[in-house]
Amino acid sequence: MRKLRAAPPLQTVGWLNSGSPITLEQLRGKVVLLEAFQMLCPGCVSYSLPQAMRARRLFSEEDVAVIGLHTVFEHHDAQGTKEALAAFLHEYQIPFPVGIDAPSERLGPPKTMTSYQMQGTPTTILIDRDGNLRKQKFGRDDDMMLGAEIMSLLRQQTPVSSGATNAKETDVCTDESCPIPAR
Amino acid sequence: MRKLRAAPPLQTVGWLNSGSPITLEQLRGKVVLLEAFQMLCPGCVSYSLPQAMRARRLFSEEDVAVIGLHTVFEHHDAQGTKEALAAFLHEYQIPFPVGIDAPSERLGPPKTMTSYQMQGTPTTILIDRDGNLRKQKFGRDDDMMLGAEIMSLLRQQTPVSSGATNAKETDVCTDESCPIPAR
Amino acid sequence: MRKLRAAPPLQTVGWLNSGSPITLEQLRGKVVLLEAFQMLCPGCVSYSLPQAMRARRLFSEEDVAVIGLHTVFEHHDAQGTKEALAAFLHEYQIPFPVGIDAPSERLGPPKTMTSYQMQGTPTTILIDRDGNLRKQKFGRDDDMMLGAEIMSLLRQQTPVSSGATNAKETDVCTDESCPIPAR
Amino acid sequence: MRKLRAAPPLQTVGWLNSGSPITLEQLRGKVVLLEAFQMLCPGCVSYSLPQAMRARRLFSEEDVAVIGLHTVFEHHDAQGTKEALAAFLHEYQIPFPVGIDAPSERLGPPKTMTSYQMQGTPTTILIDRDGNLRKQKFGRDDDMMLGAEIMSLLRQQTPVSSGATNAKETDVCTDESCPIPAR
Repeated sequence: MRKLRAAPPLQTVGWLNSGSPITLEQLRGKVVLLEAFQMLCPGCVSYSLPQAMRARRLFSEEDVAVIGLHTVFEHHDAQGTKEALAAFLHEYQIPFPVGIDAPSERLGPPKTMTSYQMQGTPTTILIDRDGNLRKQKFGRDDDMMLGAEIMSLLRQQTPVSSGATNAKETDVCTDESCPIPAR
Repeated sequence: MRKLRAAPPLQTVGWLNSGSPITLEQLRGKVVLLEAFQMLCPGCVSYSLPQAMRARRLFSEEDVAVIGLHTVFEHHDAQGTKEALAAFLHEYQIPFPVGIDAPSERLGPPKTMTSYQMQGTPTTILIDRDGNLRKQKFGRDDDMMLGAEIMSLLRQQTPVSSGATNAKETDVCTDESCPIPAR
Repeated sequence: MRKLRAAPPLQTVGWLNSGSPITLEQLRGKVVLLEAFQMLCPGCVSYSLPQAMRARRLFSEEDVAVIGLHTVFEHHDAQGTKEALAAFLHEYQIPFPVGIDAPSERLGPPKTMTSYQMQGTPTTILIDRDGNLRKQKFGRDDDMMLGAEIMSLLRQQTPVSSGATNAKETDVCTDESCPIPAR
Repeated sequence: MRKLRAAPPLQTVGWLNSGSPITLEQLRGKVVLLEAFQMLCPGCVSYSLPQAMRARRLFSEEDVAVIGLHTVFEHHDAQGTKEALAAFLHEYQIPFPVGIDAPSERLGPPKTMTSYQMQGTPTTILIDRDGNLRKQKFGRDDDMMLGAEIMSLLRQQTPVSSGATNAKETDVCTDESCPIPAR
């Protein structure tokens, strides 16, 4: 049987739509849908954030936590401030908590993004009731599959997907996703 | 606990995309997605049949049977022949088996449609591994919810939905569904 | 200057949504949008007929005539009867007149389709106020372009497009169009 | 005959995608599609900017100038800097020139927005070859109609639309548009 891997902790410097910081430990017992995005990533705005909102409406808050993570790895001036993110969440009426990924001390993607080895935005992540990382998908995801995967984890029996999937091979920001540029 | 109800048998006069007639008994052990439609129902063509095709692609044939049921209750001249249905399935590239619901001996909807008390087309039905009717939805359905419901039945534990849902109150054929006219 | 070509006459064996047969002569003075389709052509149902309905709503009947032409070149049993077409027009709520293209006396596409040298369905045709053929497009067409082309003909000055365009090279019926099979 | 009104001048504090400031005088002889937007307005991102890009692709630059105008009337911290706008234009691959509407010296919407009496974003504006304001539409617009209106002005004969249209009565930012709040 495949050995499960604990989801790395969220390293954040602030939260919106939440009175206090959120940790994965607090969410033990729930399935967590973690949506990593940037406010200027077209695929996040068009697909992955609306999908996360549909998941928020469909599943009970008792069972499923939906959390955004703002993983800014480019255009820091434009999308790097808490005020910009707050305005974005307000205009797009995003109701769930959003953490701000902690900037790297060196060049490069922010800390949580790095510890999860994300390849860009959007990245859709599922964490099971025990805190294990069970799905990590870069790029556009399918509603029916995501619904099935969340339910599978709610029924908590066997692994659903086999970890990170690469939807894209290029490093230009497309309509669907923004990859971290190769260095 | 809610008592489960066995799904009524399929009463058909022919099958397409299948070498032999299909019965629910043969499908015991699988979750069954039964999609009742008419070839001239716009909501079936636009939403429910493409959705059933997505389900066919997403889930394994070992686990989930996807079956169409052509439940003609109007325009019999236009859509009532096996040749018309075969042409439709060919043009829309529908790959799964489709049964032809047996016409009523009197006026009114065909026999399977009547025994399920369907209210029109499209109607999306889920039957569990033990042959129980677990969902019956008239009108447009949501991909994420359907994915979650199918997975829940694959994990076979508790009832998902509470039976028939009426999406429409009117009896005109809309873009989304064709209700059986009130008499 | 490009020499204009008169649009060939419509050769029909019946009309629906019209009390009497329609000829292009009757429509002199109007711009004519002629939409050739088959009721079992997915691209016609998804794109071209809804587009023709948008044109019907947008432009005045005084200025623009919108006419359908049912050009059956395959599946005659399924879509070849007037009853089948009437049921289709009713269910899809198509409000404009639709002529039934006259079957060929030999094998092959019907007569109007042949005289226009159409390559399949959908084919979108524009005829100017003087009865000249000004656009013939096989396959999916663009709303903004079609709006501009119709208005250009309403303002009647210069040719808009350079005749037949081939959107497809294959001869399988796709989601967007049904070509006449090569023989 | 309706008296035409000259389009007020653009009052800007900077331009992107253009080597130098653009004035309406420079564009005399062309039809101008002026798209007023904010980068955090969902309806602008989803509908009006993609529509302006389709117009850019469809019509010749010789005939039609497509110009964006960033009319920030809220969330100045988030979307008020030239850097933020540049990042947005880059990520959304917007190719046409975009002017930055000059902030008001008092509270309230920026100067060009005020002089056109715009009601919010998106606002789609058409200016004829002689510099007259010929269409001003707040909210989502129709592709076929816009194509017809642009072509009508290219053929320059009679007025197309009767000036400002109010698509919305409310003052909350919806999926389709962001109205300027009533004061």
